[in-house]
Amino acid sequence: MAKSPEQEHPTKAFGWAASDPSGVLSPFKFSRRATGEKDVRFKVLYCGICHSDLHMLKNEWGFSTYPLVPGHEIVGIVTEVGSKVEKLKVGDKVGVGCLVGACHSCDNCANDLENYCPKNILTYGATYYDGTTTYGGYSDVMVAEERYVVRFPENLPLDAGAPLLCAGITVYSPLQHFGFTKPGMHIGVVGLGGLGHVAVKFAKAFGVKVTVISTSTSKKKEATEHLGADSFLVSRDPDQMQAALGTMDGIIDTVSAVHPLLPLIDLLKSHGKLVMVGAPNRPLELPIFPLLMGRKIVAGSNIGGMKETQEMIDFAGKHNITADVEVVPMDYVNTALERLEKADVRYRFVIDIGNTLKAA
Amino acid sequence: MAKSPEQEHPTKAFGWAASDPSGVLSPFKFSRRATGEKDVRFKVLYCGICHSDLHMLKNEWGFSTYPLVPGHEIVGIVTEVGSKVEKLKVGDKVGVGCLVGACHSCDNCANDLENYCPKNILTYGATYYDGTTTYGGYSDVMVAEERYVVRFPENLPLDAGAPLLCAGITVYSPLQHFGFTKPGMHIGVVGLGGLGHVAVKFAKAFGVKVTVISTSTSKKKEATEHLGADSFLVSRDPDQMQAALGTMDGIIDTVSAVHPLLPLIDLLKSHGKLVMVGAPNRPLELPIFPLLMGRKIVAGSNIGGMKETQEMIDFAGKHNITADVEVVPMDYVNTALERLEKADVRYRFVIDIGNTLKAA
Repeated sequence: MAKSPEQEHPTKAFGWAASDPSGVLSPFKFSRRATGEKDVRFKVLYCGICHSDLHMLKNEWGFSTYPLVPGHEIVGIVTEVGSKVEKLKVGDKVGVGCLVGACHSCDNCANDLENYCPKNILTYGATYYDGTTTYGGYSDVMVAEERYVVRFPENLPLDAGAPLLCAGITVYSPLQHFGFTKPGMHIGVVGLGGLGHVAVKFAKAFGVKVTVISTSTSKKKEATEHLGADSFLVSRDPDQMQAALGTMDGIIDTVSAVHPLLPLIDLLKSHGKLVMVGAPNRPLELPIFPLLMGRKIVAGSNIGGMKETQEMIDFAGKHNITADVEVVPMDYVNTALERLEKADVRYRFVIDIGNTLKAA
Repeated sequence: MAKSPEQEHPTKAFGWAASDPSGVLSPFKFSRRATGEKDVRFKVLYCGICHSDLHMLKNEWGFSTYPLVPGHEIVGIVTEVGSKVEKLKVGDKVGVGCLVGACHSCDNCANDLENYCPKNILTYGATYYDGTTTYGGYSDVMVAEERYVVRFPENLPLDAGAPLLCAGITVYSPLQHFGFTKPGMHIGVVGLGGLGHVAVKFAKAFGVKVTVISTSTSKKKEATEHLGADSFLVSRDPDQMQAALGTMDGIIDTVSAVHPLLPLIDLLKSHGKLVMVGAPNRPLELPIFPLLMGRKIVAGSNIGGMKETQEMIDFAGKHNITADVEVVPMDYVNTALERLEKADVRYRFVIDIGNTLKAA
């Protein structure tokens, strides 16, 4: 007979879970596995609220299971390590992002691209190697295999650094992979939310010229004065768009709503690349002729591998890059999710798990 | 007062032209410029009929001017060279493709990518540097700047080699640029027409595994036995498509009709590239999620630069690659165009200009 989440494993755990697609979270007792020889166990201090948590809580992608404990921007302090753990020890600041497992035998895994392994295991709502369900970071304790745990730079604040584990790597990886890091390049960032604002910071740290592309002027001052973007382009202003035609080497498009691609393709120089990191739930219209005429590319990118995630967080530490966050208590989570749905956040909620998650 | 086409230049020329968007061709007297110091003049022997000739004749792209002399797969024998011509001499076998000019000062021109120069000049129906209209290869004589004239390999037949100047470079360039040339790779070719059948030949010469993807089984024997493709995939057969999921490193899509991209994207491995060389006249539906999940790319490619066109034809000479052609007399051209519109050709019509174009 299958054991209940609370009895399944030896280590008591406590968090907040949704019990159905209403997505409303409430306190939830469950358990974590014993710390295996390659495992790291840590006390969770902060966990970011990612937009995908919303989709998963409401089963909008169709593969959610309940009870669901979300959270894949998890940071904390190591409390126990297995006998074969090599790079981490008790007391270390660590983080876990979107992944906790993969097949480790495919080409992608061999190339440190666990994020593209077809059998990778998501940090929550997935089935682990042992057949149990994975639970995320809206909880007091986390256990993960060392390969999936990154060491946090000493100088990086844990609260504002937490969102880098998903939002950060999601934009850092395509900036690197598609070569948007050469000083002198001109890179566009579409959408100034959780992903976009971090994309601006990384791109600026690489030394490229950054233009934020947004539907309204409302974020112009924020983008240029606070985040350091070089310029701001209102996509609904035909004159501005016309003046910027053919000026960009690459664009990171963070918008997950359905939106037109042609104006963005037209902003690219010949051989320019439009990289999607948001996932609209319906197909977008792709005009082919403009792609042909400039040998342009539309690509997708999805988080990053563990090696690159460590590189990303080290780079962030070196350049003092964090997310702009609003730290909230655990019992504010349902309100935070409602506000996130209305884009009422600047730019990422982070739950103060360490100080506010009280045992029931 | 503007001079008539016949009086504009000193060199008498004779060809076939359409006088309006009916696209019907009839004999036409015009003239060519005197051979400038960097120019090469040649007697036209053969000219391929490209599908884009159909679009241009009927003004389907909206920028045709009349009288229109089509033809951009032009081969012949040099009869005169200017004083500053360096690499060609009287008697050489030469060819001219889609381009006869460009700005020669932009980044693309500096990188031998005249094909992506925004000011490049098409071989017919465009305005030359001197303000006169360009006329294509359905004519007895051609004059072009040496930069736009390629030397034909001695062993390559002029008739079957002519289509390489457009169809050949259109598929050779993306095979090279997107790295589809590594032995062991698996490359798909969608559509087995003028472009597709040449794509199979080049890809096989590079040593990659080639699968032809077509809507019906009718071309299977042709593809595998005659053209040398390794396998054949019927895109309307769900079982075949399912079995081929995630098996291809790259796909060259030659189809210019509106068609679904998702089944092709699904055939790609992670990091695979779908390259469009046909130009559907309406946007295609692009699902974003499958791009993200495999870091896949949809790209466009348009012919090639002159340096690469010379490399392509030299490669074709070395590997004995030609198009499969049906050589037709000049006065068959209107019938040939009708048949081309119905895809009733295997695989390219080539007009025997040298033997069949009679002075009016």
